[in-house]
Amino acid sequence: MATTVHPETLLGDALVRIAKEVDACFDTLLPVPGDARDRLFEAMRYATIGGGKRLRPLLVAAVAGMFGVDRSVAVRVGTAIEAIHAYSLIHDDLPCMDNDAMRHGKPTLHLAFDEATAVLAGDALHALAFEILSDPALIGDPFTRIELVRTLAMASGATGMAGGQMMDMVAETTAFDLPTVSRLQQLKTGALLGAAVEMGAILGKLPAEGRALLRGYARDIGLAFQIVDDLLDTEGDEAAAGKALRKDAEAGKQTFVSLLGADRARAQAHMLVGQAVHYLGSHGEEAELLRAIARFIVERDR
Amino acid sequence: MATTVHPETLLGDALVRIAKEVDACFDTLLPVPGDARDRLFEAMRYATIGGGKRLRPLLVAAVAGMFGVDRSVAVRVGTAIEAIHAYSLIHDDLPCMDNDAMRHGKPTLHLAFDEATAVLAGDALHALAFEILSDPALIGDPFTRIELVRTLAMASGATGMAGGQMMDMVAETTAFDLPTVSRLQQLKTGALLGAAVEMGAILGKLPAEGRALLRGYARDIGLAFQIVDDLLDTEGDEAAAGKALRKDAEAGKQTFVSLLGADRARAQAHMLVGQAVHYLGSHGEEAELLRAIARFIVERDR
Repeated sequence: MATTVHPETLLGDALVRIAKEVDACFDTLLPVPGDARDRLFEAMRYATIGGGKRLRPLLVAAVAGMFGVDRSVAVRVGTAIEAIHAYSLIHDDLPCMDNDAMRHGKPTLHLAFDEATAVLAGDALHALAFEILSDPALIGDPFTRIELVRTLAMASGATGMAGGQMMDMVAETTAFDLPTVSRLQQLKTGALLGAAVEMGAILGKLPAEGRALLRGYARDIGLAFQIVDDLLDTEGDEAAAGKALRKDAEAGKQTFVSLLGADRARAQAHMLVGQAVHYLGSHGEEAELLRAIARFIVERDR
Repeated sequence: MATTVHPETLLGDALVRIAKEVDACFDTLLPVPGDARDRLFEAMRYATIGGGKRLRPLLVAAVAGMFGVDRSVAVRVGTAIEAIHAYSLIHDDLPCMDNDAMRHGKPTLHLAFDEATAVLAGDALHALAFEILSDPALIGDPFTRIELVRTLAMASGATGMAGGQMMDMVAETTAFDLPTVSRLQQLKTGALLGAAVEMGAILGKLPAEGRALLRGYARDIGLAFQIVDDLLDTEGDEAAAGKALRKDAEAGKQTFVSLLGADRARAQAHMLVGQAVHYLGSHGEEAELLRAIARFIVERDR
């Protein structure tokens, strides 16, 4: 087949498409019930509809798409991961955590609503992720569903994302070295990005060897993603980011940029993306979107 | 078989036994890793080991025991529900929610540690519940595991416990009538108690009709449990309860007691327990523990 794919258009179209699909999925999942729970559902909608890059759902859809998985199934699975991502941002933004005022260019949930509603909406989104994945209407086969549940639960709990967030709190008072910062980021951000790739592979019923290569891809783009986050935190524009920046330096945290310097950090991110793309070597044009995502991760400005 | 079971001893022994088993299960699940995540694991242990009546695990074990389910499997499933219950108490106790200082006779988690750790430990316990239920070492059959996940997720999210907690917040500023207070409690407390009974039945591979009767039992003891909670909140002893009381009246919330008066509320609880026991009519001595639990719910003093 002649190569007619333009990577920029491919990625741009894919980002627009997945954002619409994930918004529609949350809209369907979260009808305001018209009773005393309305405020909870409105808060859940505020935090999930119309915001974020949707990188995790895009990864699920990109991997699942390589193996001919039904698009609507991949979107629902991606939305489950996005529900976890959204709850973690809500709780992270709380006054007792990062105390952030802006998220996705609008007031954080606890400011738009109130703190108690923010805690509860986060908890309800957490449960929603597992409601989505356990639904027999998603996939008839219970083995696939339980594998998805297990992958997401392990990636988000104390051995994954929540563990990374605890390390991030400790980082405010302890000077971590580079391996510890890498480990922190692998848990805090990498685990969920890795789960997205893994869950796409589970949907595609990919055998173990193929999954190992995709895990390598996921690990490298996850680390590159975080290095770029650190660079944007140092050099980026707050208006474009839609959130407060320069917080790590203010909190006295070690980051890839503070430990390596900006130039070496940038070189490291590019090296990791090259390595990630290398893992896709056995795949042809069907992996072009994953390659474009890897490049997007180092080239993005927010 | 001659009836030789003494209900009080039966229940007392069962409560002591399940408390030990659930403590041991959390102890195994939450080893302190010896790294920068230690504080998270210590907080999770503080909130789960050595506290609480373990009513939900007891219900799982009592129902599962009627159908010859392996005890250790029932205990692990009960521990998953207890992890959800524990996270909900941690988040409920936060300053932005109920702002409670005591829980199970010791300082609440955010006072013993700090608020950010309390938010995170709650989130990690939430994920832990689904880690436990999705573990292939729990039960080989993926269908049973995914049914357990679905039941717990639906009972704890916006259509269950979290929805009930939002109604509870609204109750501070809105005078609910009796049906709305019943609905609130059915979601806030009843959903998880019902899930415990249901999950025991799932483990026992009970067919639909048998489950419907047990659901009736669970609904009635759930409501009776909450009425007794309201009575204890009005009349109980704070030292015995190990937590602050008289909070509903201070917050101006309508409760079963404020709406019905103490005498009618007490009569209603006894009526519900009688009805719950009636649902167990088709069962013999194997349901004696469930009958004892129902009576315990109205006779407890904390």
